[in-house]
Amino acid sequence: MGPVGAEIVKYAFRKQGIKIAGAVDIDPAKVGKDLGEFTIGKKIGVSITDDASHLLARTKPDVVLHSTGSYLKDVKPQLLELVKAGADIISTCEELAYPYLKNPTIAKELDAKARRNKVAVLGTGVNPGFIMDTFVLTSTGVCQDIKKVRSSRIQDASYRRLPFQRKIGAGLTPAEFEAKVAGGTIKHVGFPESIAMIAAGLGWNLERIEEKIEPVLAEKAVGSAYLKVEPGQVAGLNQTAWGTRDGEQLIVLNLQAYLGCPDPRESIVIDGQPPIDLTIKGGVHGDIATAAVVVNCIPRVLSAEPGLTTMKDLPVPSGWFSGIEHFIKKSR
Amino acid sequence: MGPVGAEIVKYAFRKQGIKIAGAVDIDPAKVGKDLGEFTIGKKIGVSITDDASHLLARTKPDVVLHSTGSYLKDVKPQLLELVKAGADIISTCEELAYPYLKNPTIAKELDAKARRNKVAVLGTGVNPGFIMDTFVLTSTGVCQDIKKVRSSRIQDASYRRLPFQRKIGAGLTPAEFEAKVAGGTIKHVGFPESIAMIAAGLGWNLERIEEKIEPVLAEKAVGSAYLKVEPGQVAGLNQTAWGTRDGEQLIVLNLQAYLGCPDPRESIVIDGQPPIDLTIKGGVHGDIATAAVVVNCIPRVLSAEPGLTTMKDLPVPSGWFSGIEHFIKKSR
Repeated sequence: MGPVGAEIVKYAFRKQGIKIAGAVDIDPAKVGKDLGEFTIGKKIGVSITDDASHLLARTKPDVVLHSTGSYLKDVKPQLLELVKAGADIISTCEELAYPYLKNPTIAKELDAKARRNKVAVLGTGVNPGFIMDTFVLTSTGVCQDIKKVRSSRIQDASYRRLPFQRKIGAGLTPAEFEAKVAGGTIKHVGFPESIAMIAAGLGWNLERIEEKIEPVLAEKAVGSAYLKVEPGQVAGLNQTAWGTRDGEQLIVLNLQAYLGCPDPRESIVIDGQPPIDLTIKGGVHGDIATAAVVVNCIPRVLSAEPGLTTMKDLPVPSGWFSGIEHFIKKSR
Repeated sequence: MGPVGAEIVKYAFRKQGIKIAGAVDIDPAKVGKDLGEFTIGKKIGVSITDDASHLLARTKPDVVLHSTGSYLKDVKPQLLELVKAGADIISTCEELAYPYLKNPTIAKELDAKARRNKVAVLGTGVNPGFIMDTFVLTSTGVCQDIKKVRSSRIQDASYRRLPFQRKIGAGLTPAEFEAKVAGGTIKHVGFPESIAMIAAGLGWNLERIEEKIEPVLAEKAVGSAYLKVEPGQVAGLNQTAWGTRDGEQLIVLNLQAYLGCPDPRESIVIDGQPPIDLTIKGGVHGDIATAAVVVNCIPRVLSAEPGLTTMKDLPVPSGWFSGIEHFIKKSR
């Protein structure tokens, strides 16, 4: 029931055919609160609990929407408990979006246990999970002779929540920014996963995947509802990752998120035949889109083969409005 | 071995893991010619034949790439013969892209026979099949509360082949254009299929789907390598189709293809949360993209469940470079 979890719940409430059986958070300030009151300002008679095991045993959910952490080794025990309870999982854990590269052992264990318990496990979200990997791969569907792929995400962080603005370093001095990058606390998690998924979809064997993180310095004073940034201070981050073969960068992903960004957009450029030069004007709002992808994937996961799966292996994820009952596995 | 078939062959030749077993055309001018010589100017020792039955029996292909007609009732006998021969099918037949609305009886028969013969049948191409349906649906994957969907395809026909330029009416008088529209020979086939696929993906029940075709008149003289258009004459077509519920147009598709189009592009606009305003600058070249989609879908069709399938039910179609052997069904 963090910010993304709450966003997911708000959307799930509006979807026909979904019944929310329960919600889990360990924050004592949230435990015991009515989930509806906490998210949409209306009681629904379901309380947030810190006892996942009891909730799972009592409600036997078809699917759990999981949003607790970015790193697979941190959330692995939670995922295994959900698998054991027989629930399909859709998780926003960034490293789960394509875990075979950086976490092959955990991926193997999750896959084996998910198969044994006949559940499907998917990591997704807007990024990783959609805009810089699944959507990029889909865009290559009309291309022959693809030589390079580049995806950029240029975001104005002014209207995002404060934790996000802090995560990108807004308001720091350049030295503070460097220290936090070195400490690993300023970082978008998921680029290696997105690159590995694109490479796997295209059948490219990369030699290595590298990343660099740089600050975007404010040229003039910029700010948000939460903080102010003076000229020369950090307005946000500029992170690039690339996958290389024979010394050539075949896949390049670039994320710029900073206060005062003048032209936010998503961009996909494919060097192929025909070439693709795609732009989404204004970009795609992160939290709303992540909640959308997670809930929109429910029918896909409910009808997926048991095991660990990824966005590239499921049918195209689309918004949906009805008919979810057709996807519930008959065997459950 | 029409223009699209030849384009498919050219791309298939370049794909690792594909062996082209044969090619069929009924045109006496092509029969007996070496397929490689006919398409890429290099002999490959495979001749174009007009005897499909014999070729199928002799080569037992895993998949047939089929490009002979736009209307399902015309190509149905061909498709049934391929199914009987045990071959998966990827066809550019426009009405096959989503046949359940306009051709439910043929769809049912094809599906039943494909299941019985353990083959998968897919209709695809750039449009219908990808840019105005599958890609639109995929774009909705990041959206909540989708209210309307609009996709436009604005093409400069100057650089397309002559039959395409004729198909859109370039060079006709307005009266000739109207007569050909009334006679059904000037028309993009596939909008009802694309709209029905989008509606099915979103779970929308439409009341009706309508279409209109108008000429784009040349404001100044325009031309191509093949023909000239005087001011006031027809430079191409402007075709719109829409799906309606409660009197509201929920899905609108617009195709403009004419000589001298100043700003060719693909556009997808989704009225949802977040809103999506997507543009592909310069657009996507039709014939090249159709060949790309057809060949790129081979692994998806090889690993699909038997029966009639559609693009919305298959994993995201992406370009691919290797590993096709993993998709060949073990049971064949």
